[in-house]
Amino acid sequence: MSQAEFPTARLAAPVFGEPYLLTPGPLTTSRATKEAMLRDWGSWDADFNQVTAEIRRELLAMAGVSDDSYACVPLQGSGTFAVEAALATAIPRDGKALVLMNGAYGKRAAQILDYLGRTHIDLDKGDYLPPQPEEVDQLLRDNPDVTTVFLVHCETSSGILNPLAEIATTVKAHGKTLVVDAMSSFGAVPLTVDQVPFDVMVSSANKCIEGIPGFGFVIVRREVLEASKGRAHSLSLDLYEQWAYMEKTGQWRFTPPTHSVVAFRAALQQHAAEGGVAGRLARYTRNRDRLVAGMRELGFETLLEDRWLSPIITTFFSPDHPNFDFKRFYAELKQRQFVIYPGKLTIAESFRIGCIGQIDEAVVAQLLRAIADSLAAMGVDRCKPAA
Amino acid sequence: MSQAEFPTARLAAPVFGEPYLLTPGPLTTSRATKEAMLRDWGSWDADFNQVTAEIRRELLAMAGVSDDSYACVPLQGSGTFAVEAALATAIPRDGKALVLMNGAYGKRAAQILDYLGRTHIDLDKGDYLPPQPEEVDQLLRDNPDVTTVFLVHCETSSGILNPLAEIATTVKAHGKTLVVDAMSSFGAVPLTVDQVPFDVMVSSANKCIEGIPGFGFVIVRREVLEASKGRAHSLSLDLYEQWAYMEKTGQWRFTPPTHSVVAFRAALQQHAAEGGVAGRLARYTRNRDRLVAGMRELGFETLLEDRWLSPIITTFFSPDHPNFDFKRFYAELKQRQFVIYPGKLTIAESFRIGCIGQIDEAVVAQLLRAIADSLAAMGVDRCKPAA
Ligand SMILES: Cc1ncc(COP(=O)(O)O)c(C=O)c1O
Ligand SMILES: Cc1ncc(COP(=O)(O)O)c(C=O)c1O
Repeated sequence: MSQAEFPTARLAAPVFGEPYLLTPGPLTTSRATKEAMLRDWGSWDADFNQVTAEIRRELLAMAGVSDDSYACVPLQGSGTFAVEAALATAIPRDGKALVLMNGAYGKRAAQILDYLGRTHIDLDKGDYLPPQPEEVDQLLRDNPDVTTVFLVHCETSSGILNPLAEIATTVKAHGKTLVVDAMSSFGAVPLTVDQVPFDVMVSSANKCIEGIPGFGFVIVRREVLEASKGRAHSLSLDLYEQWAYMEKTGQWRFTPPTHSVVAFRAALQQHAAEGGVAGRLARYTRNRDRLVAGMRELGFETLLEDRWLSPIITTFFSPDHPNFDFKRFYAELKQRQFVIYPGKLTIAESFRIGCIGQIDEAVVAQLLRAIADSLAAMGVDRCKPAA
Repeated sequence: MSQAEFPTARLAAPVFGEPYLLTPGPLTTSRATKEAMLRDWGSWDADFNQVTAEIRRELLAMAGVSDDSYACVPLQGSGTFAVEAALATAIPRDGKALVLMNGAYGKRAAQILDYLGRTHIDLDKGDYLPPQPEEVDQLLRDNPDVTTVFLVHCETSSGILNPLAEIATTVKAHGKTLVVDAMSSFGAVPLTVDQVPFDVMVSSANKCIEGIPGFGFVIVRREVLEASKGRAHSLSLDLYEQWAYMEKTGQWRFTPPTHSVVAFRAALQQHAAEGGVAGRLARYTRNRDRLVAGMRELGFETLLEDRWLSPIITTFFSPDHPNFDFKRFYAELKQRQFVIYPGKLTIAESFRIGCIGQIDEAVVAQLLRAIADSLAAMGVDRCKPAA
């Protein structure tokens, strides 16, 4: 389906005074999603179990799973909790991981492995350079004892979309287990088991599916899950037990974030109505294209070349102008009802603007005007970054 | 303050068709609490940081903390996540715990310690009998290497209110660290540092403060927290790092359950307006008294003697009548807009009815009529439990 087939969704503006969140989540959600939270649900009740079953089913379908070779396991807490649970499940206690990193979330996985006491080697590409399939191939040749490879799909700290499909092919050619952190991409960038033979994929409620924070979820090859029984380091983060209990009872093992779960069902319905992953990708891509074009017109430069830009979030270099100050820029934009995100680069001053959530090109156009006005208010008359 | 000084709060009925949740949480919350979730908040933004700071401050005040000898650390996930984080923090890796148990939540603490690889001895009193201070004293004499004692305040699995203050005195006389699971009691049963010299106390958003599920919180003696640096088994559940990051930045370390946090602030405001802990205790006590009296009139018997009954939840024996079936009873009551809770006893068939959440005596009176009608519909004409 081409992008043009999806009409621009008509989005309700947030309530008066509420800023648009141009961040990697929590993000601006729809009124319908939030209104789903205006009811209380018994966590033990059959009505709520049905909601849980429905979202697990929908997430598996979104990942292209049509049989019971994979399971979907939601877990209370933020996305990091689900990444930690996934790593503890996927890597045997005497296993060894290869962590591919080009930003904060790859680094965080390595940090989790240190807590877990799992051996790992790292390919650290610095602030944003993509790990290449050939490098992965060489590392796996040199380190045949590696059992598991970890990759972030969209490394949200720069906004880069890593070459997941190519790396997945390499990892599979070596017969290794692949764990993908698709936190900020799943639901908007296609990621299905027929195209990307992952073993474990992690994402969360409040990213591209546009739900409310409260839980993450793991889509995991059933064999990998079953082999992990007894392996977890933590009762709360024991993915196997979470799954086994849910299969047996239909309930979450411990109190679920009921309102976030029910809001997520509403968000999934809207996701489907927008044309599923393809529809959402089309809107986010339009947002990103409008944003990047507009920012370049204003004189800003993106960190990444076009081919690495994700439709999720984009990093811009801060202008090398004596009057530019990120805190002031943030405040000016917030006054104009836009919340943006600070940068995470070590090499240069930067900031990030998200393209996800309930925003469309009209909102991006408003944002661009607000940015021009903010720069004028600050007395910043050129936006070139430092050479 | 006597109970009579607190007027019965006028509570709004849930929306049509929505049942009252007479459960130990998630529970029936107020419309105002839920409506606080109709807005999105940037998790990095100063406005949200203020909300976080406010709830941390209010929770410390509720625990009677007036200096910086204790800290409040909220943690994403369900209450169990916070219990696990608290235990991993409070008990040195080479420490030894004494776990006092009389129900599911004491047992769960022991299970967590097994995951953590911490040595523990258990005093298991079975389904509901309270651990006694003299028993604790004797165990601490016999096991001088115990470093930490764990006790559940209100053991929600039976509804018993354990003799916390007396046990705390004993534990402190031995110079041991005391960890209290006050999940289902904090906010409605007085628990302040001047009366109960605890070191660590755990509770969560969706119990007596009547918030929305999404996070738990730990109130911990600062010395204990500071001594725990580097001790955690898990990145996500590392309470020390969660605290250190929050102190430094005002932000949560990982994505917070923004909507649940903001709803919690609203719930805290309503808690204060109701007269704080004393006001809430008065309402819950009236609910419990009305419930127990009404159920006894119908012929039901409580598991516990009056002096052990908590104002949180009450266990009733199931009638020993051939027509009584819990599933049917649950369904009949749900049809009449009341959700109750199954029992957890091993000794006898039972069920539980909660007194917490946005319910008052008028709702309890409706419930009692619904119970009488349900029994009639089932053809149960006497409610005596098996002898
Ligand atoms: C790629 C990626 N991984 C992990 C995380 C961590 O998720 P959370 O903040 O919900 O713990 C994020 C959050 O933005 C992310 O973008
Ligand atoms: C005393 C007690 N401890 C722990 C828990 C566990 O809390 P959660 O279900 O939020 O994990 C509960 C839940 O009802 C409880 O009542």
